[in-house]
Amino acid sequence: MSRTCAQKGTIYLVGAGPGDPELLTIKAANLLATADVVLHDDLVPGAILTHANSQAWILNVGKRCGSKSITQAEINALMLDFARRERSVIRLKSGDPLVFGRAGEEIDALRAAGIPFEVVPGITAAFAAAAVLGCSLTDRRAASNIIFSSGHHAHAASPHTPEVTPDANDATRVVYMPGRDFRQLADAWIESGLAADLPCVVISRAAHPDQQIRCTRLGDLGEVEPGPAPTLLLAGWTLGGLKFDSPEFEPRLLAVAAGAIAVAP
Amino acid sequence: MSRTCAQKGTIYLVGAGPGDPELLTIKAANLLATADVVLHDDLVPGAILTHANSQAWILNVGKRCGSKSITQAEINALMLDFARRERSVIRLKSGDPLVFGRAGEEIDALRAAGIPFEVVPGITAAFAAAAVLGCSLTDRRAASNIIFSSGHHAHAASPHTPEVTPDANDATRVVYMPGRDFRQLADAWIESGLAADLPCVVISRAAHPDQQIRCTRLGDLGEVEPGPAPTLLLAGWTLGGLKFDSPEFEPRLLAVAAGAIAVAP
Repeated sequence: MSRTCAQKGTIYLVGAGPGDPELLTIKAANLLATADVVLHDDLVPGAILTHANSQAWILNVGKRCGSKSITQAEINALMLDFARRERSVIRLKSGDPLVFGRAGEEIDALRAAGIPFEVVPGITAAFAAAAVLGCSLTDRRAASNIIFSSGHHAHAASPHTPEVTPDANDATRVVYMPGRDFRQLADAWIESGLAADLPCVVISRAAHPDQQIRCTRLGDLGEVEPGPAPTLLLAGWTLGGLKFDSPEFEPRLLAVAAGAIAVAP
Repeated sequence: MSRTCAQKGTIYLVGAGPGDPELLTIKAANLLATADVVLHDDLVPGAILTHANSQAWILNVGKRCGSKSITQAEINALMLDFARRERSVIRLKSGDPLVFGRAGEEIDALRAAGIPFEVVPGITAAFAAAAVLGCSLTDRRAASNIIFSSGHHAHAASPHTPEVTPDANDATRVVYMPGRDFRQLADAWIESGLAADLPCVVISRAAHPDQQIRCTRLGDLGEVEPGPAPTLLLAGWTLGGLKFDSPEFEPRLLAVAAGAIAVAP
């Protein structure tokens, strides 16, 4: 099987997956093993960086790292600068690089500069969370659509509010970065027609060893206190299979999930 | 780093990714190397099956394989039968197992039978396609949501039609299995408020060596003849960065995409 090697002067926008180092793709591992420079987000675990070769320069450019002064423009400039000096550069982002990661702006900068680049997809948190829960995100009996939103837009009671239709229940909703207080979102969703007993799951640090899962219904979602960031909110009838109202809350989930599982009151 | 080994009597629903063998996760490769039985879909390429250990029983249970007589119930029965005989079993599905793959029904059967199972996520075709195109699926300037639908439901001019809101243009739409004729879908989308000049891409066999990419605008989508299955339809303003109206249609894309690129008239 062919193994991709990082090429000099090229920038790779690579998805690191949700956190579990085994959920990295083989291509991402092959690129890490051969690249000269790795610029990574805060959320990328150290175990994934061990795939990098021992000569590589590894830089944390996460916006939450100690120095908050790294701007998107500076990250873009760093990438371009390394590539122009004929380095092979990996821009490593948690999850998938093209989902809620501002890759659009980085790609615009690369295109404008004429620097060759390639995107390597990664497992986004939504699919890692669904796998941990053991619940399909689609089901021909319950959900024909999946809607991904980011918290900022999911919260606003504006035209950006995740779409609700006459058959609004026929979708599984996933909200990235849903914030700490779900009251406003729950109210907006109920007001726009979603059922108060719609199953909801708040998952904190999905696919990390310390993940936490909280299950509830939309009517009680406002009471949930999310665990440590990053968190993800899932809502939809396919989650009903979890039978999380039952006292025997899916013992298999406890085995699959390495972290604590709490059932919301 | 810990390596997951397939456990006896356990069933693993594993995503094989979109086609490129390097887009398999490390966990999927580790499980394939240690499982006794692999039940795979038609769309899983042979190169991925080379990860399986040489003693494994590898069975194509694809619904499109020579014998069309394999039903979902028979697949479920096969999985359960192997697991009860203390075999470790991989149910290998193309893409991600929890997205448009009927995993909900398989999981129900496993839960009902009390067989331990685990889900391993995979790269779904939408993210592989976006990576090939070098286009973010979200962009704070152009798309705050992503909507995944399957063709059957995207086509119907029914309550199942992918949701269109007053701000319908603030989403990237991905339609799995969009069928061969896009006329009806294009008409329905335009009628419900999407712009006729909305960028659309039809990608055939994304991340396979023979992938084909066709770019157009929603108003002309009905004229597009899709390439070989599986195909995927993407629509959204973030795709506008491709500048596919220009004669110099992204030379870099030609390098990234191993297959032919055609620009629709």
